[in-house]
Amino acid sequence: MSAVFDRISIIGIGLIGASIALAARESGAAKEVLLFDASPDVRKRAAEIKLGTVVDDVVSAANADAVFLCVPVGQMGPATTALAPGLKAGTILTDTGSVKTQVRDALVAAAPENVFVIPGHPIAGTEHSGPDAGFATLFQGRWQLLTPLSGKGAEYDAAVERLAEFWRRLGARVDQMDAERHDLVLAITSHLPHLIAYNIVGTASDLEKVTESEVVKYSASGFRDFTRIAASDPTMWRDIFLANKDAVLEMLGRFTEDLAALQRAIRWGDGDALFDFFTQARAVRRHVIEAGQDTALPDFGRNASSSQPAPTGAPDASGTSGA
Amino acid sequence: MSAVFDRISIIGIGLIGASIALAARESGAAKEVLLFDASPDVRKRAAEIKLGTVVDDVVSAANADAVFLCVPVGQMGPATTALAPGLKAGTILTDTGSVKTQVRDALVAAAPENVFVIPGHPIAGTEHSGPDAGFATLFQGRWQLLTPLSGKGAEYDAAVERLAEFWRRLGARVDQMDAERHDLVLAITSHLPHLIAYNIVGTASDLEKVTESEVVKYSASGFRDFTRIAASDPTMWRDIFLANKDAVLEMLGRFTEDLAALQRAIRWGDGDALFDFFTQARAVRRHVIEAGQDTALPDFGRNASSSQPAPTGAPDASGTSGA
Repeated sequence: MSAVFDRISIIGIGLIGASIALAARESGAAKEVLLFDASPDVRKRAAEIKLGTVVDDVVSAANADAVFLCVPVGQMGPATTALAPGLKAGTILTDTGSVKTQVRDALVAAAPENVFVIPGHPIAGTEHSGPDAGFATLFQGRWQLLTPLSGKGAEYDAAVERLAEFWRRLGARVDQMDAERHDLVLAITSHLPHLIAYNIVGTASDLEKVTESEVVKYSASGFRDFTRIAASDPTMWRDIFLANKDAVLEMLGRFTEDLAALQRAIRWGDGDALFDFFTQARAVRRHVIEAGQDTALPDFGRNASSSQPAPTGAPDASGTSGA
Repeated sequence: MSAVFDRISIIGIGLIGASIALAARESGAAKEVLLFDASPDVRKRAAEIKLGTVVDDVVSAANADAVFLCVPVGQMGPATTALAPGLKAGTILTDTGSVKTQVRDALVAAAPENVFVIPGHPIAGTEHSGPDAGFATLFQGRWQLLTPLSGKGAEYDAAVERLAEFWRRLGARVDQMDAERHDLVLAITSHLPHLIAYNIVGTASDLEKVTESEVVKYSASGFRDFTRIAASDPTMWRDIFLANKDAVLEMLGRFTEDLAALQRAIRWGDGDALFDFFTQARAVRRHVIEAGQDTALPDFGRNASSSQPAPTGAPDASGTSGA
């Protein structure tokens, strides 16, 4: 297959930027990959592990058919301003930020008129950061959400289709939605879960009655899953919460109300209410697995040496898992 | 190695009960395994998959050197009452419940005086339930917490050591603590994380502005981890929250206070407070991995086809994970 782009450029060489570089070359979706990062150490490392052609000034990095901004959400506007003098007419300018409304506005404000601004967000990642964390299969089977501007005409629409084709070549499934809806959906599927995970890890660390060593030692009882999510990059997440403030606060309000209802059920010993609530929540897991969004293996397949089957038939209420 | 027990008995054939049966026979820690479950269907299934000698009345199941109660916490007392007529002098009566204070009191109240009551809790499990979910390696490298009664004398202490040896033969690491401390530690490492996971899954399902299909479709952005925890057995968890009410409410109060502080930081745009909080939480993950309580592989090793290394050196703030 021929390349979708002759030359792409990656601005910000972290997990996502490095993964795009590797996947673009492995798939042949781009002939040449330029990379730039504000940190000289990161640029040096990117060159050492041969992610592509590392350039030392951001304006040179603008000289590409498609430019991918892979920096924290709060840096999208400043990065675009820095790139602007080098951007050619007809270049696609896209990003990978987890918030789309504010990023769209920042990109449109800072980019030249004759550039195609197409905000995007790959629903993919791990808790690791930096250029060494990247890998070519990161986007395989994952969603790439594009939030194109409206009413921009046929040339713009063709650019959107070209960018979508690029992501499909990286193995992603591509969807389009408007930026406001993206931010609302991600507030509940991603931003709030991360906030909650950060919070419970903080609460556990602060307990004077229980030592941190006990929390860590017995973390396999549930807590360890939260520590993984809370290991994500702090700069990235600070920017997300600041940039998607309204949707996050809205979802957090709902979460807190629901939690108060559960708290009341525990205090008053309302076992039926707890049972019904837990039963409904359990069904959602089945939907996630049916939608191909997670493995059906017990415990995420962590205990890979065991070969127990996925459960057959309806879950059984006898017996206790030792959590 | 010779067997630790000639005959053990499992009451409640779920994930834990089935796993003890399989591990005891595979390790040779018990020569014979009796099994009983209140459900005829579960007994039938346990016989079909050859977990051991399935008996049809609970009194017969009491005839063993050690009896393992593997039923939901709320059933520990009634199960002991049912077993009592068949329990021999010197039998070890233990359990696998996730709450220890209330279970200890229930066992002591219902068991004959001449039985050694030794409450216990294996920190092991998956989100799956029922006899088919059991596997022999479940306890390998995991903690088994024993919460023995105090001041019971030398014979009792010897029984505790014998039970500890049994669990070591199943691959577990054994610790002792008092029941009250167990319940406090597990409230933060296990019970509160499960409550939070159930709650956020419930909140997401109830949103009229975002459809459940969208939540499921984009769940890989963080939400799917919570659905796994929230897929655990509802009966088991109802009983845990009712039985460990005071410790759970205490931890929940702290969690809610901390969350209010994060909420305020978001509302007022206090990026420094968010960054500092997230940075501290991130460090806990490293401790969990150093303590051997979880895999260092990205994303729990879910993406097993990728062979990206664990990150080298300090995490880097450049780039964004696409969460």
